[in-house]
Amino acid sequence: MSEQIVEVATRAREAATVLALATRATKDAALEAMAAALLDGTDTILAANAEDVAAAETAGTPPHLIDRLRLDGGRVAAMAQGLRDVARLPDPVGEVLRGSTLPNGLELRQVRVPFGVVGVIYEARPNVTADAAGLCLKSGNAVLLRGSSSAVRSNTAVVGILRDALEAAGLPADCVALVPGEGHDPVKALMRARGLVDVLIPRGGAGLIRSVVEESTVPVIETGVGNCHVYVDEAADLDMALAIVMNSKTQRTSVCNAAESLLVHEAVAADFVPRVVRALQDAGVTIHGDAAFGAHDGVVPATEADWDAEYLGLEISAGVVPDLDAAIAHIRRHSSGHTEAIVTGSQAAARRFTAAVDSAAVMVNASTRFTDGGEFGFGAEIGISTQKLHARGPLGLPEMTSSKYVVTGDGHVR
Amino acid sequence: MSEQIVEVATRAREAATVLALATRATKDAALEAMAAALLDGTDTILAANAEDVAAAETAGTPPHLIDRLRLDGGRVAAMAQGLRDVARLPDPVGEVLRGSTLPNGLELRQVRVPFGVVGVIYEARPNVTADAAGLCLKSGNAVLLRGSSSAVRSNTAVVGILRDALEAAGLPADCVALVPGEGHDPVKALMRARGLVDVLIPRGGAGLIRSVVEESTVPVIETGVGNCHVYVDEAADLDMALAIVMNSKTQRTSVCNAAESLLVHEAVAADFVPRVVRALQDAGVTIHGDAAFGAHDGVVPATEADWDAEYLGLEISAGVVPDLDAAIAHIRRHSSGHTEAIVTGSQAAARRFTAAVDSAAVMVNASTRFTDGGEFGFGAEIGISTQKLHARGPLGLPEMTSSKYVVTGDGHVR
Repeated sequence: MSEQIVEVATRAREAATVLALATRATKDAALEAMAAALLDGTDTILAANAEDVAAAETAGTPPHLIDRLRLDGGRVAAMAQGLRDVARLPDPVGEVLRGSTLPNGLELRQVRVPFGVVGVIYEARPNVTADAAGLCLKSGNAVLLRGSSSAVRSNTAVVGILRDALEAAGLPADCVALVPGEGHDPVKALMRARGLVDVLIPRGGAGLIRSVVEESTVPVIETGVGNCHVYVDEAADLDMALAIVMNSKTQRTSVCNAAESLLVHEAVAADFVPRVVRALQDAGVTIHGDAAFGAHDGVVPATEADWDAEYLGLEISAGVVPDLDAAIAHIRRHSSGHTEAIVTGSQAAARRFTAAVDSAAVMVNASTRFTDGGEFGFGAEIGISTQKLHARGPLGLPEMTSSKYVVTGDGHVR
Repeated sequence: MSEQIVEVATRAREAATVLALATRATKDAALEAMAAALLDGTDTILAANAEDVAAAETAGTPPHLIDRLRLDGGRVAAMAQGLRDVARLPDPVGEVLRGSTLPNGLELRQVRVPFGVVGVIYEARPNVTADAAGLCLKSGNAVLLRGSSSAVRSNTAVVGILRDALEAAGLPADCVALVPGEGHDPVKALMRARGLVDVLIPRGGAGLIRSVVEESTVPVIETGVGNCHVYVDEAADLDMALAIVMNSKTQRTSVCNAAESLLVHEAVAADFVPRVVRALQDAGVTIHGDAAFGAHDGVVPATEADWDAEYLGLEISAGVVPDLDAAIAHIRRHSSGHTEAIVTGSQAAARRFTAAVDSAAVMVNASTRFTDGGEFGFGAEIGISTQKLHARGPLGLPEMTSSKYVVTGDGHVR
């Protein structure tokens, strides 16, 4: 483990023991102070960001990535508002999850406690820096942040401002820190910092997530790869089905809860397939279809890889299935376990689909786009877990905690 | 990944999709059938076990390990009773963990679902084979079992009987299977079977657990390493303290919730240390003490390694601390995060200790030996988690599940 990582993680660990005992009032005051400091420091942040953007342009970075990197006054204000929103959410720490008095009189309580130190590895916009810091702080966790190297000046500016604000609010600056160093080595060291880092959350593309899962000895919460399906059942209202397919695919294409694959029951294929092909193509969507879809102009033949693809763009794979169970079997084979939707008027089909499809979220007559911490009413999310251990689906504040048992007696022995 | 493991894990996965949809009535009937079959098959099991024992004796295995390996009619009956006890526990699958109607009318439910396929790697007695099979079946999970190679004949006999009973009860035999093959390679393959195996639970010594954590790409739940502390505060009732120390250390020494380290506040050291030294030595316990304990005959000087040791026998490390915070700091540095106890009459000391000590269980005026699924009223446990992700403390049936969100609308789009 590199000495630099040990040092930064050890300091985070010490900060975490203080933060774990901080009251909600202290944490909320710190979040408000962090928000105010971001607004005050807007010029500093934008100047640092302009350097990142200039360096990226010099390096020939494609425009959509530059766009993701660029901050403006509105985005900084949104970061500050995000911190204020988190301050208003209930504190998960200290919640009693279960409690009872045992037959021998021992009092048992299971209480939510922070993890300790959380590592977040991300590729996204610099605003994730403030979002992750806020969610970790509120849940009582110190956070080690590792953003994209292209955003290092922006992230350094944001973290510097947040650390000063924390200190002014009476909490250790080391509750929030950037992982120092260049290249992959610091990330590798972070992934091996078992005992110093309690949980790692990678946020980014499938490649990043796979490499963290493969290499990390620190427990990982996987987030965000979504090959989401919409299945149009024989009992579907086809107008509703069309609206849900279009919303799931086109309302926002670069996100993990966008639909990437469409399955249609053969009983409604003759009616529905021509309509949905036209609507998708009118919206600029390229369809990778099976034979039934392929009968329509402009549909590209689907390869085996298409059924597994997360396009994150104006593309969709599409096929006709003989029945509900074939749709379920197809989803079992190809889904990434994020979100699948059925459109049906049949209670029996909805019940079977929701029971048999093993994904973080299963929608009945609703767009896949609803799998989201904000939409679910969690107030904020740090990502969407597609693994089964610990937390599945949107990760809100409660999912950013562990628990412990507190057992009270008056001299009990066995 | 070895072909054999892929084959057995793929069959388990198929069985798991059937088992996940089985009703409680079906699962309980299968557990009763499995219990009856174990009793009917006692002769077969004991004959296989006798071969294991004979082979171990020939190999010069030490007597306490032979003892752990040996089954008799009583132990087989206890295995059967264990399955019946699990049948009587509530089914965790289908429990609604949270539910609400969102502002837009979408109905949101978070529902407990099985993991899918659970791998259990264990070194313990052959009765773990039936225990793990029962807990996994009831929680809707197919299980891949990898026991000690010295118990392979016993485990094969038990699993064969359980699989026949499952099939007779209308569930797939592949809900329970042994991982085939000799040596470490099959274990290695199991640890890399990401996508086929959902969770691995190692049960055994620190070496086994460390190697699984290091090598596994399948998510792991760590269990059972316990360097448990008892801290005797200045405000302790010293009779109570003596009883709790003696019970924590000597009631059963080979278990993870036995105390391995004793800390005494210096204000009561002059009174308490001589008493506890005498009582421990009378019980045959070797004390690895600091200077204060070392002033007593027969106390061995503690090395740095002693403070981290999990003796699992009649040994204890012991020291005097200047105050409560020094005890907490010592525990933070040396504890394995299993169970720590404070003996105190002070409400403030109890509150500070339970808040600041970050372990799976924190006891106030009670023996460390109470950290146990049975004692906690969970009915059964598959181990005691010392990690913070997913589950911490005794793993009962609810901890053997994941969850999913089911979202119902009537054509909702964003």
